[in-house]
Amino acid sequence: MKGISILGATGSIGTQTLDVVRNSNDDFKLIGVTANSSVDKMKEIIKEFNPKYIGMMDADSAIKIKEFCLENNFKVQVYSGMEGLIKISTLDEIDIVVTSVVGMIGLKPTIAAIEAKKDIALANKETLVVAGELVMRKAREEGVRILPVDSEHGAIFQALQGNEIKDLKKIILTASGGPFRGKSKDFIKNVTLEEALNHPNWSMGSKITIDSATLMNKGLEVIEAHWLFDCNYESIQVLVHPQSIIHSMVEYRDASIIAQIGSPDMRLPIQYALNYPKRKEKVAKEIDFYEITSLTFEKPDIDTFKCLRLAFDAGKKGGLMPTVLNGANEVAVSLFLNKKIKFLDIADIIEDAMTIFEEYTHNDITIDNIIELDEKVRKYVINKKG
Amino acid sequence: MKGISILGATGSIGTQTLDVVRNSNDDFKLIGVTANSSVDKMKEIIKEFNPKYIGMMDADSAIKIKEFCLENNFKVQVYSGMEGLIKISTLDEIDIVVTSVVGMIGLKPTIAAIEAKKDIALANKETLVVAGELVMRKAREEGVRILPVDSEHGAIFQALQGNEIKDLKKIILTASGGPFRGKSKDFIKNVTLEEALNHPNWSMGSKITIDSATLMNKGLEVIEAHWLFDCNYESIQVLVHPQSIIHSMVEYRDASIIAQIGSPDMRLPIQYALNYPKRKEKVAKEIDFYEITSLTFEKPDIDTFKCLRLAFDAGKKGGLMPTVLNGANEVAVSLFLNKKIKFLDIADIIEDAMTIFEEYTHNDITIDNIIELDEKVRKYVINKKG
Repeated sequence: MKGISILGATGSIGTQTLDVVRNSNDDFKLIGVTANSSVDKMKEIIKEFNPKYIGMMDADSAIKIKEFCLENNFKVQVYSGMEGLIKISTLDEIDIVVTSVVGMIGLKPTIAAIEAKKDIALANKETLVVAGELVMRKAREEGVRILPVDSEHGAIFQALQGNEIKDLKKIILTASGGPFRGKSKDFIKNVTLEEALNHPNWSMGSKITIDSATLMNKGLEVIEAHWLFDCNYESIQVLVHPQSIIHSMVEYRDASIIAQIGSPDMRLPIQYALNYPKRKEKVAKEIDFYEITSLTFEKPDIDTFKCLRLAFDAGKKGGLMPTVLNGANEVAVSLFLNKKIKFLDIADIIEDAMTIFEEYTHNDITIDNIIELDEKVRKYVINKKG
Repeated sequence: MKGISILGATGSIGTQTLDVVRNSNDDFKLIGVTANSSVDKMKEIIKEFNPKYIGMMDADSAIKIKEFCLENNFKVQVYSGMEGLIKISTLDEIDIVVTSVVGMIGLKPTIAAIEAKKDIALANKETLVVAGELVMRKAREEGVRILPVDSEHGAIFQALQGNEIKDLKKIILTASGGPFRGKSKDFIKNVTLEEALNHPNWSMGSKITIDSATLMNKGLEVIEAHWLFDCNYESIQVLVHPQSIIHSMVEYRDASIIAQIGSPDMRLPIQYALNYPKRKEKVAKEIDFYEITSLTFEKPDIDTFKCLRLAFDAGKKGGLMPTVLNGANEVAVSLFLNKKIKFLDIADIIEDAMTIFEEYTHNDITIDNIIELDEKVRKYVINKKG
């Protein structure tokens, strides 16, 4: 039985990870869970799974959970803040940490978990985007696995099994295209928040749903793929595939392509990552090709969806530029979610930040420099637009 | 450098295998080649590759090749008949035999090669169709690899790399559907030989092209897949996919599907089989998904294309029934190629033979019983229809 901690257990990926654990026939024991401030959801998790360790980022929420556990006789250690997140990532009893928190907050606990020699089921995009070089080097040094949890990198990871990474010629990263696929700039400039949140295939958190609409999500995935699979940017092709059935592909040097296909259900890649290298009985629905009449493909429109181009630019530029891209994007999306800016402003804000902070991107890639620059970028964007 | 023999070197697969050898940067040394009676093509092979051993099935052709080699100072041993085929399959200097002969003639040399502990790059369908149980058992006993050379089983083989066969849930065997896909029985009953030979995607020999038009080719592949991948018939799904880009797929127990994709070019699976487990620099064109707008899928019409149903029936029935299916089909296709029967007669002839020879199919599966029954079936069909 594998011991497991879930960072961000009440979010979309966290909840689906709990469902995989629930259906795993005791392959996993849930040892630690964290959340930000979702006290009610955390109470439900405690009642069902009875984990030994809880972390609540928010101090008041930590107190509420402590009281609940005392009243109901749950023997639980409750922590708060970043300290708690790190504690729960490094527990002796765990083998694997699922990093399903959203945003830069995932960076420190992921590094701590790697140093404690825990395998990482990585769902936190920002970790690789801003610190891919650091994280992958540390993982190699400590001999831990970085197991991708999102559907695209999970697909590439599966397509690489039984093959040698040196034979990888091209990664074909599929993208649904989001709710505004095929639309013109003129149409998109006036879209509402509600339209942007209406993703055609995936039910996800609001930040990643907006990232999918701008194609920044795919851009961040390009940078992740670069680090995860040691693949240069010229060899990563983004392919719009609206049905989200082919989750990504790998082309080998002999021109053979291996694709991973499945229902658009995050529990599939979560299950694969947690059980790797084993496969277990399905938690999600099979694809029936007799019912699929057609799978379609398009080239992405990087003029209209500028965020994708900006992500490639930031990745190729390297250094701390992905930190600028990511920080500016996080603030811009938050402003859009709060209806402070329009949809196309998101890309403009990022492009502006990438110009303004160009000189900073040559600094050494250290956790401290990343966090410092990330804060600078956020402040800059908020002061200008917030 | 791997030593290699090619049985049937002047046919479609043989010729393409030579092209792979030609482009292999000396990964392979062509030691032995055989042909039926294509003297001129064999002379070209001798001039280019200078193999040490030649087999010509036809005795007169063997004499012509001998004379040619004497006149031109090629130091070559020339054999004739089945003895030659077996000799060239079991040479000390070879590591792998490509069995690209068409028909029952491939059976004995394949068995002999396995007993001589040669790996088999298997392109001869009939071997597994009539004697799958025998061949696979012998291969296990001798510790040799059966490496599938056709695009579908090659795809399944690739999709299984890095996975455990026990996790295989379903094989999805793709089929182009042939030139008469979507047509009604009424249309098909009057098709001409020329129409049947006009395959939409693949350039192949005439026997296999007709088998593709009747869907018997897919039926034979179903039986091969059953033996190659130890998969019951209920878990093999035939999927019509007219573009022939996805060459087949494997569904695992976790509902994840791995597909192999590539240009419809036989040199790709040949190259993979010969180099396995390595991948080498491409000999064929890559797929560009930006140029593919759509991949489509259909359920096969087994009422109109009865051969596919008959093959499933023969496989499930087991014993020597696939020998009856295959023997009757070979004769029926030959009659159709000679314009003696109509297209839909092919399936009726096979169905009739499967009824007539039902009692024989319970005999032990031995090479002698297979060959005896095969001859009986052929005589019966020729007497009735020829």
